[in-house]
Amino acid sequence: MSALSSQREFIDLRLDRLLPRSGLDPLADPVRAACFSGGKRARPILAMLSAAHFGGRELAALDFGCALEMVHAASLILDDLPCMDDGAMRRGAPTLHRRFGEDAAMLSAIALLNQAYAAITADEGLTAETRLRLGRMLAGAVGFGGLAAGQMRDLRDPAALRDEASLTSLNHQKTGVLFVAALEGGAVIAGADGAACASARLFADRLGFAFQLWDDLQDCTSTLEAMGKDALQDGDRVTFVTLWGEERTRATIKTVIDEALSALGNLDCPMAAYALSLMPAA
Amino acid sequence: MSALSSQREFIDLRLDRLLPRSGLDPLADPVRAACFSGGKRARPILAMLSAAHFGGRELAALDFGCALEMVHAASLILDDLPCMDDGAMRRGAPTLHRRFGEDAAMLSAIALLNQAYAAITADEGLTAETRLRLGRMLAGAVGFGGLAAGQMRDLRDPAALRDEASLTSLNHQKTGVLFVAALEGGAVIAGADGAACASARLFADRLGFAFQLWDDLQDCTSTLEAMGKDALQDGDRVTFVTLWGEERTRATIKTVIDEALSALGNLDCPMAAYALSLMPAA
Repeated sequence: MSALSSQREFIDLRLDRLLPRSGLDPLADPVRAACFSGGKRARPILAMLSAAHFGGRELAALDFGCALEMVHAASLILDDLPCMDDGAMRRGAPTLHRRFGEDAAMLSAIALLNQAYAAITADEGLTAETRLRLGRMLAGAVGFGGLAAGQMRDLRDPAALRDEASLTSLNHQKTGVLFVAALEGGAVIAGADGAACASARLFADRLGFAFQLWDDLQDCTSTLEAMGKDALQDGDRVTFVTLWGEERTRATIKTVIDEALSALGNLDCPMAAYALSLMPAA
Repeated sequence: MSALSSQREFIDLRLDRLLPRSGLDPLADPVRAACFSGGKRARPILAMLSAAHFGGRELAALDFGCALEMVHAASLILDDLPCMDDGAMRRGAPTLHRRFGEDAAMLSAIALLNQAYAAITADEGLTAETRLRLGRMLAGAVGFGGLAAGQMRDLRDPAALRDEASLTSLNHQKTGVLFVAALEGGAVIAGADGAACASARLFADRLGFAFQLWDDLQDCTSTLEAMGKDALQDGDRVTFVTLWGEERTRATIKTVIDEALSALGNLDCPMAAYALSLMPAA
C-alpha cells in the first residue's frame, strides 16, 4: 500500500499545480474544496497502473489521470445540486453548493471540466496524436452517450420502466465510462496495441459495473455516519439491489470481478490488486 | 449580406451534424433548442472571416467556429439559471430551464462545453498541433480567468466596489474572451505569424469591449418586446452606462471601434465590415 500512497501524493501535488491558487481566481476555493475532499483518486491511480501494466511509465499518465479526477469531482458537484439529487453531505462534509452557493458550485463544475481539457491538451510529455486521442476519449465519456446523458436518464426515466438492460446501460454511462477512460487511456499512453486496449476496456467496463453495484449496496445498507454522504437517497429509485436483493447483488459483484480479471489475463498484477481493493464489501 | 447568409447556412448545417439527433440522446432536444434559437452566429462567422482575412480558407474554421457557438450557447444557458441571472426569456422564447427544467439545462451546458472540445479534437481538416493550440486557447477562454471566473465575479463582487478598471476586466472575461478566441483562432487556422495573431487579438479585444458596451446600453434602454429577453435585468448592477451615462457610453463605443479597426490595419475588408454590422446602435 505504500506504492499507492506515493501515487496519491503525486496526484495531489499535480492537482495542486493544475488548479489556480486561492485568491488568484474567484473559483479557486470551491474547486480546491471539491478536489481535495478525501477522494480515493481511484481513476488517476487506475490510469497510472494501466500505463505501467501495458509497458509504459506510471507518471506519463499523471496529467491525464488528474483530468479524470477533475471530471469526477465536477460530476459529484452536479449530482449533489438541489435540481439533481439534492445532497446535503458528501465525504463527511457539507456538499459544495451548501458551502459556496449553487452558482459557485455550478461554475466550479464547468471550470473543472474545462481544466481537464486544458491539462490533456497541454500535456507535453505526450505526443500531439496521443493528446488528441485522449481528448476524444474524454469527450466520449462526458457528454452525449456519457456522464451527462446518463445523469439525465437517471433523473428523468420513469423508475417503473427500469429493467436489467436499461439499468446496465445506465450504470455504464454514470460510472463505467470514466473507468473505461482511465484504463484505456493508460493503455493508449503506454502505446499498447488494439487488442491490449480492448482488454483494458473490457476490464474497466466490468470493474465499473462492480463498483456501481457495490455503491448501490452501500446506499441501501449504510447509515449517514458510516458513509459520509446521504444514505438511502436512492431509496425511491430502482437499482440492482431493489431488482435482485442484497444477496444476488453481492454474488454478481463477485462474478463481474471474475470477468474483469479474466479480461486482463494476468491476475497477479498491481492493477488487478488495486481494483480489488476498491471493493472491500465484495 | 448574401455571403453572410451562406456562412450562417454552413454553420447551421455543421452544428446540426455535430449535435445528436432528437431521440438518440436524452439531451438532444434541449441542446438543439439552445443552439437553434435564432442566434447571430457572430463568433463562428468571425472565426471564418478571420481565417480568410489572414490568408486561409473560411471553411477550415467552420468546426472551430461551431465549437465557439456551443460554448456561447452553454454560457447563455447558465447565465439564465435561477441561481445566476434568473432569466425568464431569451431571444423571444422562454429560457431553456423554463422549457426543459433546471437539471436538463445544466446538463445541456456541460454537454455543449464538452462537445466543443470533441469538435476541436476531432477536426481532421487541421493538423494535430493546430487542434491542440485551439483546444488550449478555448480552455483559457472558458475556465479560470475566463467566462466561468467572469460570471463568478459578476455574481459575487459587491457592485459598490466597481470602478472602470474592474468593469473592463470583467467585461473582457464575460464577453471579450470568446471574441478573442474566434479572431485569434481564425488567424491560427490560417497559419498567420505571431504579429498577425497579436493584431487579431487586439482587434477582438476592442470589438468585445464595444459589444459589451452596446449590450449594456440595450439592457438599459430597451423594452422586453424589442429585446426578446428580460430588459432592465441589469438594473441593480453597476455597468458602464450607470458609471458614464448613455451619451458617453455611445461615444466610447465609437472610439473603441476605431481602435479595433486601427489594430487591423486594413479597414476595407469583410471582417471589419461584419464586425461593424454587429453594433447597429453605435
